[in-house]
Amino acid sequence: MTVASEADAIPPAFDGDDWSRDAFLGGRLWLWQPRRGFRSGSDAVLLAASVPAAAGERVLDIGCGTGAALLCLASRISGLTLVGIEIQDVLVEAARRNLADNGLDGNAAIVAGDIVGSTAMAGDARGFDHVFTNPPFFAAGRGRASQLAGRRLARHEGEVDLGRWIGFGLRRLRPGGTITVIHRTERLAELLAALGAGTGAIRILPLWPSRDRPAKRLIVQAVKGARAAPVLLPGLILHTAGEEHYSVEADAVLRGGAGLDLPR
Amino acid sequence: MTVASEADAIPPAFDGDDWSRDAFLGGRLWLWQPRRGFRSGSDAVLLAASVPAAAGERVLDIGCGTGAALLCLASRISGLTLVGIEIQDVLVEAARRNLADNGLDGNAAIVAGDIVGSTAMAGDARGFDHVFTNPPFFAAGRGRASQLAGRRLARHEGEVDLGRWIGFGLRRLRPGGTITVIHRTERLAELLAALGAGTGAIRILPLWPSRDRPAKRLIVQAVKGARAAPVLLPGLILHTAGEEHYSVEADAVLRGGAGLDLPR
Repeated sequence: MTVASEADAIPPAFDGDDWSRDAFLGGRLWLWQPRRGFRSGSDAVLLAASVPAAAGERVLDIGCGTGAALLCLASRISGLTLVGIEIQDVLVEAARRNLADNGLDGNAAIVAGDIVGSTAMAGDARGFDHVFTNPPFFAAGRGRASQLAGRRLARHEGEVDLGRWIGFGLRRLRPGGTITVIHRTERLAELLAALGAGTGAIRILPLWPSRDRPAKRLIVQAVKGARAAPVLLPGLILHTAGEEHYSVEADAVLRGGAGLDLPR
Repeated sequence: MTVASEADAIPPAFDGDDWSRDAFLGGRLWLWQPRRGFRSGSDAVLLAASVPAAAGERVLDIGCGTGAALLCLASRISGLTLVGIEIQDVLVEAARRNLADNGLDGNAAIVAGDIVGSTAMAGDARGFDHVFTNPPFFAAGRGRASQLAGRRLARHEGEVDLGRWIGFGLRRLRPGGTITVIHRTERLAELLAALGAGTGAIRILPLWPSRDRPAKRLIVQAVKGARAAPVLLPGLILHTAGEEHYSVEADAVLRGGAGLDLPR
């Protein structure tokens, strides 16, 4: 992920040379993405791999961007109903195109909407079976914040309000459903606080750059309404051999399309 | 650590058959401990190994019990000034005896006191260079809670107030000094919240029972007044070969008396 002025760099329209078409899951999927600005990569794939969905279930991706995680999940598990919410119209357009191009638009919808004070999907009483999200990693104005959380957040808050982001997901999740988040390790305290009293059975899966280096990112999964204690899992080592190659385990997920198990 | 009624099981007096003398650090230290009730083990050794103290510095152990962690630290680093605070008189007596028996009572003091509303050490303005603690692991009335935090806590709160425990340490720490805590993973969110705004440069070191099992305990270290982001370290794998043996790395600490590095 690049940092400065990402949101500003996203092209205003979905056409022309500002877009590239990139392979995911070893070529199983091809996605249109902006050449500059926020581009999905291994985070989206790892996030999607860790969602424990099953055929027939409904899943929601908050801030779905160009749909990379949604598409990876749909590729791994057939028979899902997919919903993504995204604030930037041009990314909504790209996500819809990506679903159609990959033949995965049958049970999928991309909703254009803001999570702040949004009434998007307010009429849906049933609740989703699984919610997942790759929230803005950086402070407002520097990363996906202004892209996803809207100008209001960027203007009034120095930091992305992770609690609001998570709360949006929890309210749309059925009891017993899971919420899965990928985030930077330095936001772990906020993330655990945001999941707070409404969830339990939290699983923390560190993503180690290599065997002997600190985890910069992690996946956190929780179950709405559960009471079990949190668990710190051994995690996934991403690189071996001096970081030139993915580990066997990471390669199975990133290029092989395998799932990532977070045992309870 | 055993669970039920530990505090009740601690013998009322420091004499007789209720006490055993146990080897620590491969026989470098011998400690009197109650045969029943709370007995120190690898947690105390790992905690002491992770305190980055240097000769001439002052360190405080909150809830020092029979002094196991204090003694391990004194054994590894000479020239420290050691203070332990402990609420149970019989453990205070044992800790003093253990310091003397091991020839480590020269610059050491065990203070009998409660951390709740305590004025113990209130007159000490300089602040400690390092504070460390192995707080009550279990809910009040089930573990060290009633032993250490006092009857008041046990009566009025369903859970040990970890925030108060940590706060006691932070107030007695100089700016730039470290606080090191060993605790159960399931208290991680509380622990991070308790360290909160007053500290930074948090290091989380998971203690893995073996390479492929979740970490039940972890060591968390923070620097008072620092602002750096938290880091999740690869951690220490305790057992290999089907858990019959300590790993080489764990053995170096537990029996060899080595330090445990938490790099910044």
